Amino acid sequence: MTRFAARCPAAAHAFAATLDDDVTLDGASGHHLSRVRRLRSGELVTVADGNGTWRPYTVTVVRSGAVELHAGGERVVEPRLEPALAVAFALTKGAKPDLAVQKLTELGVDRIVPLQSRRSVPRWGSDRAGAAVARLRRVAVEAAAQSRRARLPEVDAPRPLTDLHGHPGLVVADPAGDDVGRVPSPPEGEWMLVIGPEGGLDPDEIANLGAPARLRIGPHVLRAETAAIAGAAILTTHRATPRDHPR
Amino acid sequence: MTRFAARCPAAAHAFAATLDDDVTLDGASGHHLSRVRRLRSGELVTVADGNGTWRPYTVTVVRSGAVELHAGGERVVEPRLEPALAVAFALTKGAKPDLAVQKLTELGVDRIVPLQSRRSVPRWGSDRAGAAVARLRRVAVEAAAQSRRARLPEVDAPRPLTDLHGHPGLVVADPAGDDVGRVPSPPEGEWMLVIGPEGGLDPDEIANLGAPARLRIGPHVLRAETAAIAGAAILTTHRATPRDHPR
Repeated sequence: MTRFAARCPAAAHAFAATLDDDVTLDGASGHHLSRVRRLRSGELVTVADGNGTWRPYTVTVVRSGAVELHAGGERVVEPRLEPALAVAFALTKGAKPDLAVQKLTELGVDRIVPLQSRRSVPRWGSDRAGAAVARLRRVAVEAAAQSRRARLPEVDAPRPLTDLHGHPGLVVADPAGDDVGRVPSPPEGEWMLVIGPEGGLDPDEIANLGAPARLRIGPHVLRAETAAIAGAAILTTHRATPRDHPR
Repeated sequence: MTRFAARCPAAAHAFAATLDDDVTLDGASGHHLSRVRRLRSGELVTVADGNGTWRPYTVTVVRSGAVELHAGGERVVEPRLEPALAVAFALTKGAKPDLAVQKLTELGVDRIVPLQSRRSVPRWGSDRAGAAVARLRRVAVEAAAQSRRARLPEVDAPRPLTDLHGHPGLVVADPAGDDVGRVPSPPEGEWMLVIGPEGGLDPDEIANLGAPARLRIGPHVLRAETAAIAGAAILTTHRATPRDHPR
């Protein structure tokens, strides 16, 4: 049995609270599968609980806006990649947080940490931050369904960059930084990639973080969302499932 | 002297046909620098010829829609990273070619190869391909200015995937593929990363390419533009300037 739903030749992937033998998907998933994907009885669907377990199902009934499913196999636990990977990026107007969250989710990032900065746009003010985070979580669910992840990334509440001072496993993008091969393994099992407001951090800001590792992505200036996506892609190549170890 | 304009603390970066001692920027660049960036006399600007050479300038006169510049230093040749990196991706409706070209340009990709496929959208038909490629080239120029590249990426005319059969240095994204460290150096100095219509290629399509290297990006399903961006970011970490060799 393949351990990633991505390698299952399924027609669609969705999330449900439980993975019982019989599952009914309604709401946004049910609408998507019945109306947009136009699933038919007998088709294969993989369903995940968002917490790392997925299961293959067969469509039994299609109604308007809902599909009923019956299990076609056992539950499978998707391996975690190690070390875990968190990406923290500043929520400025130009940072395209939706795009970043979509791509980071496809790439398998475990945790997304929105950072407040002096240049943050007003909707990230404290009173509206809840709605904004809820929106990013919806983007993550859609991207996880599209990329057939079994585990949803966590999307934290916004916090200031200074909160990350001394955080273990910090990595900042830096054109003068190190090859990924020289970025040390994180001491507590999680890399925290930090992306500044314009895709880089000032020397002062880096010093304020403590002594983070510095990852070289390329010699040019990167937009914030590009630095986040590229940095995550590069670090992900140095992650592995436990079964793959030792590398 | 730094060799990349990105490391020059310049206020802006633009392209001009020649890098004479006195340069006038008008057209889109002149508008951007005078009206959007609102440059003032005495400010620093870097100007590149798009072919690998750049030079620092000082603003002498700002007119409506144009800026006049005088050289403030010598010409600098931006090193090429080796091996060269080309990225070929299918131009389907969902592939977001503008986004891919913007990000690939920021990341330093040397050549972008649009691929026609059965699922290509109508504007990539032969009669309209010229206008579509011109559009992608404008996106590349804007991204190169933003990321302060001295060398513009080439954007080829669209061609069918089958044209790449046996091309040296082919690399395809494959969840079951190799670590980037095991992707061989390209025999003719250029990697050609190939991204299929849905971010992956069918086994038949891969077989039709010959025996390409297979690069593992991650265990999940990637959208086409995500696979292009992530694959380019990963391969770029294994490129270097000649001065950096041996690695």
